[in-house]
Amino acid sequence: MASWQQYLDDHRTRFLEDYLDLLRIPSISALPEHAQDVRRAAEWVARRLESAGLEGVRVMETGGHPVVYGEWLHAPGKPTVLIYGHFDVQPVDPLELWSSPPFEPSIRDGRVYARGASDNKGNFILAVFAVEALLRGEGQLPLNVKFFLEGQEEIGSPQLPAFIAQHKDLLACDLVISTDGANWAEDQPSLSVGSRGLCALQIDVQGASSDLHSGLYGGTIQNPIHALVRLLDSMRSPDGKILVEGFYDRVAPLSSEEREMLARIPFDEEAYARNLGVPATFGEPGYTTLERAWVRPTLEVNGIWGGFQGEGTKTVLPNEAHAKISCRLVPDQDPEEIIACIKAHVERHVPPGVRVSVHPFPGSARAYVVPPDLPALQVARQVLAEVYGKEPYLIRTGGTVPVLALFLTHLGAHTITVAFGVEDERFHAPDEFFRLANFDRGQRGYVRLLQRLGEEA
Amino acid sequence: MASWQQYLDDHRTRFLEDYLDLLRIPSISALPEHAQDVRRAAEWVARRLESAGLEGVRVMETGGHPVVYGEWLHAPGKPTVLIYGHFDVQPVDPLELWSSPPFEPSIRDGRVYARGASDNKGNFILAVFAVEALLRGEGQLPLNVKFFLEGQEEIGSPQLPAFIAQHKDLLACDLVISTDGANWAEDQPSLSVGSRGLCALQIDVQGASSDLHSGLYGGTIQNPIHALVRLLDSMRSPDGKILVEGFYDRVAPLSSEEREMLARIPFDEEAYARNLGVPATFGEPGYTTLERAWVRPTLEVNGIWGGFQGEGTKTVLPNEAHAKISCRLVPDQDPEEIIACIKAHVERHVPPGVRVSVHPFPGSARAYVVPPDLPALQVARQVLAEVYGKEPYLIRTGGTVPVLALFLTHLGAHTITVAFGVEDERFHAPDEFFRLANFDRGQRGYVRLLQRLGEEA
Repeated sequence: MASWQQYLDDHRTRFLEDYLDLLRIPSISALPEHAQDVRRAAEWVARRLESAGLEGVRVMETGGHPVVYGEWLHAPGKPTVLIYGHFDVQPVDPLELWSSPPFEPSIRDGRVYARGASDNKGNFILAVFAVEALLRGEGQLPLNVKFFLEGQEEIGSPQLPAFIAQHKDLLACDLVISTDGANWAEDQPSLSVGSRGLCALQIDVQGASSDLHSGLYGGTIQNPIHALVRLLDSMRSPDGKILVEGFYDRVAPLSSEEREMLARIPFDEEAYARNLGVPATFGEPGYTTLERAWVRPTLEVNGIWGGFQGEGTKTVLPNEAHAKISCRLVPDQDPEEIIACIKAHVERHVPPGVRVSVHPFPGSARAYVVPPDLPALQVARQVLAEVYGKEPYLIRTGGTVPVLALFLTHLGAHTITVAFGVEDERFHAPDEFFRLANFDRGQRGYVRLLQRLGEEA
Repeated sequence: MASWQQYLDDHRTRFLEDYLDLLRIPSISALPEHAQDVRRAAEWVARRLESAGLEGVRVMETGGHPVVYGEWLHAPGKPTVLIYGHFDVQPVDPLELWSSPPFEPSIRDGRVYARGASDNKGNFILAVFAVEALLRGEGQLPLNVKFFLEGQEEIGSPQLPAFIAQHKDLLACDLVISTDGANWAEDQPSLSVGSRGLCALQIDVQGASSDLHSGLYGGTIQNPIHALVRLLDSMRSPDGKILVEGFYDRVAPLSSEEREMLARIPFDEEAYARNLGVPATFGEPGYTTLERAWVRPTLEVNGIWGGFQGEGTKTVLPNEAHAKISCRLVPDQDPEEIIACIKAHVERHVPPGVRVSVHPFPGSARAYVVPPDLPALQVARQVLAEVYGKEPYLIRTGGTVPVLALFLTHLGAHTITVAFGVEDERFHAPDEFFRLANFDRGQRGYVRLLQRLGEEA
């Protein structure tokens, strides 16, 4: 048996205790009253990196929640990987839906129930254990490793762009391994090779200078809600195609290989709709549900309001109406260009009798795609196939992971996301859990990943 | 000089004091903390009717705010008129926009500023003074008179339908004179010969069983806001015509006489838009703004909501969306039938992927029109022409006056609305006022109206 495997076996109980300890810290980044807990988690993580044998370990300030850095750089001629993860967690509301307290980890039926059990404490900590097993068991790492763990991922990492830009040298690397992901199913590994971009804006429609009596004025001037409804309806065909001029112009066409790869992923349309509680799936014609979720752009109204929302009826002719819109973008759409398209569409379609303005929100992000020929991607596929006994699906996420574009922009490094949790482990929801079967598999997986990446170089 | 005119002249100061006294009572029917003030106003009015010489005066319970009744029935062979008005007033918010306290009447430049100065205390009280002048000055009235003054008009008279139905004998009359109206301009009298009906409903669109992440699910299922927007947009053409099937089916066509009468009323389109703060008027093609306001039906969205309404952006795919709609109806539209039309339209146009339900609200009302050949209408025209030196415009109101249909249904009596305030006297708004020039003219006007109605019979 390899020394690292022996080390993992010997220290299994201690590692599990460490993991549960970390889960006990309520490091909820969204709630100001938990700011000290986020910092406590940072300090815990820093101590744990040190005890694993990492060097130069430090808790660093960002202006918001801190980050933790640690390194081992004694493999000259070998590549450097930056291991990314986050030690902050989502809020726990509604608390009454938890079967056990979210920050008192409970082991039931081979699962650890706690907030952060899977997202992301349960994933990044396995990489720490893997590094410790290699360092203590083998006496060295097969390549250079930097850990970069943050405490504000669940609130959108507001201070991270500036921090990464200011610490390019410290964070410099050849590849990023993100531990912030999940596998397709309990026995089916997957690798996410792309995430969608994002842009968002608000549309404000202004009618009369004040709310008016719908009896006295109704029928004589434009109703801002009708105008907004008209405008929003003009942006999408009834069957779900976006009609904003130029919206699809730069969308990279889907290759037949990509379509085939997506088609290979088993997907139960009926179960999907049933689980969400909708009568049927719906969306842009000509694409499968997975294609629409992962590789096609969207324009969704996130919120709408205007006039009277109380109980019963109020015969008001409201004087304003508002909508918030966000778009999920795919390669090669440019967020600023899409906002300009929507603005131009709105200007071309302003209904008579009202004034309309468009206000973009900050926080735009481009889509990110792992280059299909990235050697590390092949390595990750092989490692997952080895530890699961099954080829991973190459999937995408429909969500946006801005940090991936940040690493590429500032560090020039691509990211592979390798994690050992599973999609169904109730991230952000009550009774979040992590399967203990993957506790061991994940440690072995990260060891093998680092070893194979070291061999490849 | 007629004895009644002498009486009015002799008691002018006292009558003005009485009017100001009534204005001092903050009888806001909408606010529970003013319920006792509404009752105080009822008692004040009852005492005032008694001192004017009316008999059988009583404050009567409705289950909500009380009504006041008083009568003089000593003109055998003459018709009986029921004089209607209300002693409750609108709330006064925003208080800071008042130049003087709303319940401390202030006389400036020949105007009385106070909440209720015009709507409706300043109008019905003139009819009380007129009756006193006739009774005390002439010793009798030219016909039988009943006063029926209510305290819940500003909250939609919720208990009035049942009250009127239960007191048909007490309220029995040949004609109702409503004092709850206003004239076109300071020197231009008008008679409202019609008001629009009303029906209202709510549309609820249900998508998934909970809010979803717009990145993970966006593009794969119907967005309830998009679905609602589609549905609402399908109900109205971009130029303002209602597209709900059957909506216009029963609308009584506008006669060329009616159109000519409306066309004779001077109307400044630009000033109208400017005063409301809109870039232009808007509405159903083929009709003038006044026609659209008075004799054409409307379908207006009174409120809409769904998803995120806070600051900034939240990339949620909301799971429900709602809209409130009300329609102003014209002869011969039936409120229940219009609700059925909208329901059927919604059912025919339910967008895929969501569930939609329609919930009608109570409080429907038919439109009301004074029969053009009603003798009392001609009398009122002549009296207004006499006291103003100018023919009144025959106008309508776009609003709904449910009490008019109630009087017709339960008492079999039509209503003429004769008032001496002016449209521009800021009803329901800060700095409501009443022109003192009309204080005298109104008393004379009501005297002449009662006299002429007595002669006609």
